[in-house]
Amino acid sequence: MTDTHTHTHTPPRLSLSLLGLGDMGTALARTWLAAGHSLTVWNRTPAKAGALAAEGASVAASAADAVAASALVVVCLLDDTSVGAALEGIDLTGKDLVNLTTGTPAEARARAAWAEERGARYLDGGIMATPTMIGAPGTGGYVFYSGSRALFDSRRALLEVPAGSRFVGENPGHAALHDVALLSAMWGMFAGVSHAYALIEGEDIAPKDLAPLLSEWLGAMGFFVGNAAERLTSRDFTSGVVSNLAMQVAGSGTMLRTAEEQGVSAELVTPYVDLLRRRLAADPAAHGGEDTTGAVLLLKR
Amino acid sequence: MTDTHTHTHTPPRLSLSLLGLGDMGTALARTWLAAGHSLTVWNRTPAKAGALAAEGASVAASAADAVAASALVVVCLLDDTSVGAALEGIDLTGKDLVNLTTGTPAEARARAAWAEERGARYLDGGIMATPTMIGAPGTGGYVFYSGSRALFDSRRALLEVPAGSRFVGENPGHAALHDVALLSAMWGMFAGVSHAYALIEGEDIAPKDLAPLLSEWLGAMGFFVGNAAERLTSRDFTSGVVSNLAMQVAGSGTMLRTAEEQGVSAELVTPYVDLLRRRLAADPAAHGGEDTTGAVLLLKR
Ligand SMILES: NC(=O)c1ccc[n+]([C@@H]2O[C@H](COP(=O)([O-])OP(=O)(O)OC[C@H]3O[C@@H](n4cnc5c(N)ncnc54)[C@H](OP(=O)(O)O)[C@@H]3O)[C@@H](O)[C@H]2O)c1
Ligand SMILES: NC(=O)c1ccc[n+]([C@@H]2O[C@H](COP(=O)([O-])OP(=O)(O)OC[C@H]3O[C@@H](n4cnc5c(N)ncnc54)[C@H](OP(=O)(O)O)[C@@H]3O)[C@@H](O)[C@H]2O)c1
Repeated sequence: MTDTHTHTHTPPRLSLSLLGLGDMGTALARTWLAAGHSLTVWNRTPAKAGALAAEGASVAASAADAVAASALVVVCLLDDTSVGAALEGIDLTGKDLVNLTTGTPAEARARAAWAEERGARYLDGGIMATPTMIGAPGTGGYVFYSGSRALFDSRRALLEVPAGSRFVGENPGHAALHDVALLSAMWGMFAGVSHAYALIEGEDIAPKDLAPLLSEWLGAMGFFVGNAAERLTSRDFTSGVVSNLAMQVAGSGTMLRTAEEQGVSAELVTPYVDLLRRRLAADPAAHGGEDTTGAVLLLKR
Repeated sequence: MTDTHTHTHTPPRLSLSLLGLGDMGTALARTWLAAGHSLTVWNRTPAKAGALAAEGASVAASAADAVAASALVVVCLLDDTSVGAALEGIDLTGKDLVNLTTGTPAEARARAAWAEERGARYLDGGIMATPTMIGAPGTGGYVFYSGSRALFDSRRALLEVPAGSRFVGENPGHAALHDVALLSAMWGMFAGVSHAYALIEGEDIAPKDLAPLLSEWLGAMGFFVGNAAERLTSRDFTSGVVSNLAMQVAGSGTMLRTAEEQGVSAELVTPYVDLLRRRLAADPAAHGGEDTTGAVLLLKR
């Protein structure tokens, strides 16, 4: 009875193939091996497979052999061009192809059509993690998936071994779009924080003293994210505005003059100021009392 | 006994004068009146004092009368020029002047010297709050103060009625510098988030579904703030790097091409990419393996 009970709770040994053993591919591979699954690997430069072979991976002599070895084929290569190169001429009939290579939404959609023409189901993934966050559930990394819901549902147990998952729709481009959207927001924050630190360079202010103030303030101002989502949905940029566009544009002068005084290039903060100014100038009476979210509309051509 | 006991715990009724009854000045005034303090107010346009008079404020007929009425004089006007205009020719001997008008660090330092020449102690403040956050402790607003520590210490009880305080040093420009640094970081985040929302405009993705993903990701990537502070202190940009500069620059192409595909102007994200590219190009061998924090050094001229 005890044995049976234990047995019921042992996850089944599943099998998959992985193409690409760069930093990310290697990190992914280790989690599947550690979980006891049957993994076939291939890498263009064969030497990178050595360590994984010692850890229990089967090493395929060619990409075609790796694809032939399993119904589930995960690809994690440099870019979409390398995916095309690695899978060129290989039979994908009946395969489940999961592409974790970073690319644009259009590349993902084209790759999905390409895979489906070749008889495969296709799922695209955008990895929101560094290799060190793979197989480390506490670090908050995860993977956006989009494309075949049927593939995702049937392979979910294996796909969630390296990191958590967020399925964001059947449009195969949407994982990449979510990935890029989050990275863009992050780079904006990095840019703003970089400017803030540049302002105190050479001053008698320790970066470590500024850091907690910056973190706390960015946390408090994070309300912008949800507020902007509501306004972009309702297209109401004027109700309940606290700091309006006219006031923000007027106040931006202090920010730019401070950069000048401190001998800091304003290149990272100027574009947003310019965007707000353009929104205001387009119709001061209509936009002056607005929330700054309305400026998002100027970005979309 | 009970009366005496109650009396001991009633905060003393203190007195101060406030110049400037715009949105912010009016919000400040209400908190002092609500706390039972003796407040004299003045505003260039007298009509704005009417409501406060009904709430118990004494209305001064001139700025000079308002200054004469109290040893503590708080000023909250449009900008530094209006402070100079309002206080022109007024005797400040023995006064404690607290300037909550937004300005640059250099303006604050010049105003401090100006006030001290006229026999006043000077404290500069940078308000990290909107008027609705004044007198509402739960909302997280506060005021940066710098300048006379003696003034701050002796007037602290009154100064903390409208909002919490953070004293950031005797250099009178440092409150303004902290204020602008935090606002700059915030605008960077707003810019990045604006770009992210522009990317999904017209797509079958609801802003309200993207919002929690953005918030969570920005929270997780907030480690950049503390990490950058450590690296800028140690000047070590290479130890323990996870995503290095070369990789980030290579990956930025996907971000820019996605904007292009989505018909979104990349104006808000391009400057940081360009900065990272310049840092890399300056010495690929030296900087390729670095953390992106090193790019901060390029901003400081
Ligand atoms: N590393 C991260 O922090 C991170 C985070 C999120 C997403 N990602 C994404 O994950 C993917 C892999 O990243 P990585 O860090 O593992 O990159 P990497 O260490 O540079 O590895 C690149 C991989 O692509 C292979 N490759 C390149 N060109 C090829 C071609 N023409 N044909 C066949 N194989 C080719 C390389 O094979 P060789 O060994 O033969 O060169 C190697 O296996 C990328 O799309 C990346 O954007 C990475
Ligand atoms: N509102 C916010 O969210 C906020 C947040 C943080 C910091 N602040 C700062 O707080 C300060 C006041 O902001 P506010 O929102 O109260 O602005 P506001 O509503 O526009 O009020 C401006 C005030 O300045 C006075 N003023 C302008 N020019 C003057 C002059 N030449 N001489 C005398 N008085 C003059 C105005 O008097 P009249 O009534 O006669 O025009 C009015 O009392 C600004 O420095 C602002 O940057 C505001």
